[in-house]
Amino acid sequence: MRKTIATVSVSGTLAEKLEAIAAAGFDGVELFENDLLACPLPPEEIRARAADLGLTIDLYQPFRDFEAVPDDLLARNLRRAEHKFRLMERLGTDLLLVCSNVSPEAIGDDERAAAQLRLLAERAAGHGVRIAYEALAWGRHVDEYLHAWRLVRLADHPGLGLCLDSFHILSRGSDPIGIEAVPGEKIFFLQLADAPLLAMDVLQWSRHYRCFPGQGTFDVAGLVRHALNAGYAGPLSLEVFNDHFRQADTGRTARDGMRSLLALEGELAGTTHPCVPTGFAFAELADDGGAFGEVLGALGFTRAGAHPRKPVELWTQGGARLLLNATGAEPSLAAIGLDGPDPAGAVKHAEALLSPVLPRERAPEEARLDAVAAPDGTQIFFCDDSWLSDFPPPPAGRSGGAVTGIDHVALTQPWHYFDEAELFYRTVLGLRPQGSLELPDPYGLLRSKAMSDPGGAVRMVVNIAQVGSGDVPWQHVALACDDVLALARRLRAEHPGLLLPIPANYYDDLEARHDLGPELRELRELGVLYDRDARGGEFLHLYTVTVGRVFFELVQRTGGYDGYGAGNAPIRLAAQHSGHRSGGH
Amino acid sequence: MRKTIATVSVSGTLAEKLEAIAAAGFDGVELFENDLLACPLPPEEIRARAADLGLTIDLYQPFRDFEAVPDDLLARNLRRAEHKFRLMERLGTDLLLVCSNVSPEAIGDDERAAAQLRLLAERAAGHGVRIAYEALAWGRHVDEYLHAWRLVRLADHPGLGLCLDSFHILSRGSDPIGIEAVPGEKIFFLQLADAPLLAMDVLQWSRHYRCFPGQGTFDVAGLVRHALNAGYAGPLSLEVFNDHFRQADTGRTARDGMRSLLALEGELAGTTHPCVPTGFAFAELADDGGAFGEVLGALGFTRAGAHPRKPVELWTQGGARLLLNATGAEPSLAAIGLDGPDPAGAVKHAEALLSPVLPRERAPEEARLDAVAAPDGTQIFFCDDSWLSDFPPPPAGRSGGAVTGIDHVALTQPWHYFDEAELFYRTVLGLRPQGSLELPDPYGLLRSKAMSDPGGAVRMVVNIAQVGSGDVPWQHVALACDDVLALARRLRAEHPGLLLPIPANYYDDLEARHDLGPELRELRELGVLYDRDARGGEFLHLYTVTVGRVFFELVQRTGGYDGYGAGNAPIRLAAQHSGHRSGGH
Repeated sequence: MRKTIATVSVSGTLAEKLEAIAAAGFDGVELFENDLLACPLPPEEIRARAADLGLTIDLYQPFRDFEAVPDDLLARNLRRAEHKFRLMERLGTDLLLVCSNVSPEAIGDDERAAAQLRLLAERAAGHGVRIAYEALAWGRHVDEYLHAWRLVRLADHPGLGLCLDSFHILSRGSDPIGIEAVPGEKIFFLQLADAPLLAMDVLQWSRHYRCFPGQGTFDVAGLVRHALNAGYAGPLSLEVFNDHFRQADTGRTARDGMRSLLALEGELAGTTHPCVPTGFAFAELADDGGAFGEVLGALGFTRAGAHPRKPVELWTQGGARLLLNATGAEPSLAAIGLDGPDPAGAVKHAEALLSPVLPRERAPEEARLDAVAAPDGTQIFFCDDSWLSDFPPPPAGRSGGAVTGIDHVALTQPWHYFDEAELFYRTVLGLRPQGSLELPDPYGLLRSKAMSDPGGAVRMVVNIAQVGSGDVPWQHVALACDDVLALARRLRAEHPGLLLPIPANYYDDLEARHDLGPELRELRELGVLYDRDARGGEFLHLYTVTVGRVFFELVQRTGGYDGYGAGNAPIRLAAQHSGHRSGGH
Repeated sequence: MRKTIATVSVSGTLAEKLEAIAAAGFDGVELFENDLLACPLPPEEIRARAADLGLTIDLYQPFRDFEAVPDDLLARNLRRAEHKFRLMERLGTDLLLVCSNVSPEAIGDDERAAAQLRLLAERAAGHGVRIAYEALAWGRHVDEYLHAWRLVRLADHPGLGLCLDSFHILSRGSDPIGIEAVPGEKIFFLQLADAPLLAMDVLQWSRHYRCFPGQGTFDVAGLVRHALNAGYAGPLSLEVFNDHFRQADTGRTARDGMRSLLALEGELAGTTHPCVPTGFAFAELADDGGAFGEVLGALGFTRAGAHPRKPVELWTQGGARLLLNATGAEPSLAAIGLDGPDPAGAVKHAEALLSPVLPRERAPEEARLDAVAAPDGTQIFFCDDSWLSDFPPPPAGRSGGAVTGIDHVALTQPWHYFDEAELFYRTVLGLRPQGSLELPDPYGLLRSKAMSDPGGAVRMVVNIAQVGSGDVPWQHVALACDDVLALARRLRAEHPGLLLPIPANYYDDLEARHDLGPELRELRELGVLYDRDARGGEFLHLYTVTVGRVFFELVQRTGGYDGYGAGNAPIRLAAQHSGHRSGGH
């Protein structure tokens, strides 16, 4: 299907927007009036600029507060419309979006509204222009798409049809199945936006929090399916008003919008995600040579081997594999390897969804490993077991280590790109969002979103920190353990400085909230945090101090616990800041 | 009255919070449980730390989901409470805030709720603790303060009283006059927060958007007056949850809270603002020597004289006076002088409201000029006419200049401190907010708030820019004109590069919207922007290009127009970015 986007959805000047939209592969644009008004180019040049870039101008928008007005106002509104028709001729575009009237002067009279819309369509026809009428969710008298359709049918003019907008329909909780009552050729245009579920005034919600399909909670694909069933044959067009998108990089947002539409097409075609990962193959830590070795050794990891050609070491324990890459950089989490049934297919899928495939040099005898860049720059590798053959066969490892594998990995996103991250993990990796949280930090707020595959084998947590003027760029690798208390006991005895100290006040409160008996004393002594879910599932966890940007969490899940101990995160954050500020690790 | 603040209202660790709260002059704190839990100090040390700082711990909070529960849950809740009573003994505090139950397990039965609250108060009394019961605006069964009072009266225990919170009462639209039905000694605590009027879920509103009294739209002083009439004799206590405050500087927020309470006390005492300014005495521009001279000359200003001792020149036109101070800094707006009946009184008032009075060196023969720092660092001088005597008497000026005075001054605030700015201009200068706007910028959003004295003689616009990664630190001085078209005509002819170019598309739209006739052609030719209000008042304005951080606006108001042409701001912003990026001024 043709793909278009409203110019208001991305940042920049109109010239910058058109360039980025074309580069992202869109076929055309909805030209947003404010972008035109602020543009120094005359309409004819905008038309030529778009054509040079291979873009059509599919719609001009919005024209407001036209219909259902007293007669004297009608004359003024028609005069206003004539100006826009002439402008559209200069732009070479033939479809005008008319939003339902929000003015207090509008009259709640369907006959009047329909007659005036018919008159508008007649005048428009003289300029080769057609009218797409849209019910705004906050329209004065017309706020529902089936009401708009009633008026369009009543007006009965070939140049008058509907514009449907998924936000206006789904934000009101209207059932989109009614779209199938509209003949496809009367749906002149289809605008798509998703949104998070927010309990606020719908106008504010629409103006600031819309996002691309797949980034929110609406079933946008379901709505599109109804439009296609009705016979709609026009473009899929993104129209998003979003405070973060306004500030973000133009090209990046445009690409992300295209990724959203490509994923939507896949969903419409009924294709399930072709290669959801089945587990963590490894996490790769970059360091300046040796920063992690001591911590990993203390945690019970064994240096299993070194890469013959690169300064990379493989450390293992149970099913957890960590690569230490001596890049000379600040210690950080550089890459994640994901196991899956079809690594080559996964890369192809990621590439089809516009993820940058990273160039990688390898010797001819080395295993082929392809990676794409996640929104925060972390490299995501798609693996089968062959990469292990790059390393010499490991010596007989120390047995009886507590760590059994990687439980989850948490990354901090640049704050403009939280929505992009959700779309990436959802569409490129096939993970599903588990929920979104806000966590108080001593110096701000952390917004956190957990994503996982259906089986919980691959769990990723994406955070954005809105913390003071500085950054909290912490990343962490959570290691699953089968006896976290035993591990904590050993670590407290052998490596007393390694673990993050937890305040005694936390345990007083834990005692007040839960009747844990003697177990509590052990948690307190070992500095282990505790959470319990509504069904009795339990979560025991603790943290190492931070090395560079990275810390490790040691976790143990029992009884089907599926969360991340979010209630304890503020305790952890405070302890980390305190260690940081007092010049600790 | 005693003044206290909840520790959750400011950022930082508990130790940092206590220090900043004491430094700001508060008498005590409400200790927020999460701050305690994350604190590495034991309760006894927190108690000692507070005492050393001269702070009492007036309240421990919150205790949740206690009352109106099934019997088995009651036992668990009492156990939980006993832990908190023992903790409070260690902290040396005797008042516990109990919020109305929000849990789905709560039963809508007033008798049960009251009996359980009575039991809680009895147990508390054994530890010397009293209970302040508060209706949360989103409580499951109790969400209204008079309902809470009904339960407290029914429970009838001397150790059980009410906590009243202005947010929970005013956000629901409850009439606070009912407070006078409560005996003063049963109001155990009074929490104060203001908030902007937002149409959203009250829980989200409360958790993220509360602000200090005087920063929002609630009549907090009116509510306090009812509590005082009832006989309340406890502290005035601030309790604010605000995303910006969480990220802002601890000490600065604490001082701002104290300023809010001091201003509230003034309001309660019925004192009107003692020295509202009556006009702009001057605006002072810092530059690197000569940057502004050319622009001012072009605009028709005359160099009226130079300061005998400092590198400061006075430029005048009509009633507009600009000081050029060759500091060597980037061209910027450094100071504003305000005329008023009592400059010394104004400084005293500002100092009483904790505004930093700036040190100033002057020669003995020079006029005394005192200044305070506005939140963005701009110096605000309080003046009578005597400062003019520092300059030699001006030569006979060029007559017939179009500029008659300073219309308004616009400053850009650091974004964490938008609320602080409103409180400053409202309480220190006595200006009133005229309204708040969001303006699209090509690379973000601008939030803008206009403040003025009742007569419109002193108008200040405070902006915060949320624009990309970079800053838009523009400031501007708007000059009132009596014939802005004539001025524009002369400037276009004589100084073609001086004015910001306005796109032709803007005028096409203006023509569509208004039937301006031949006047439109003139606006278009001269690049003058136009606005009209609902009563026919008109606003003509245009802009110079930017010099350093500063540009000038030339404005003409007719027919009682009281706005700032906000609808045209996006056009201006786009033109400014374009000039900026293409390497223009």
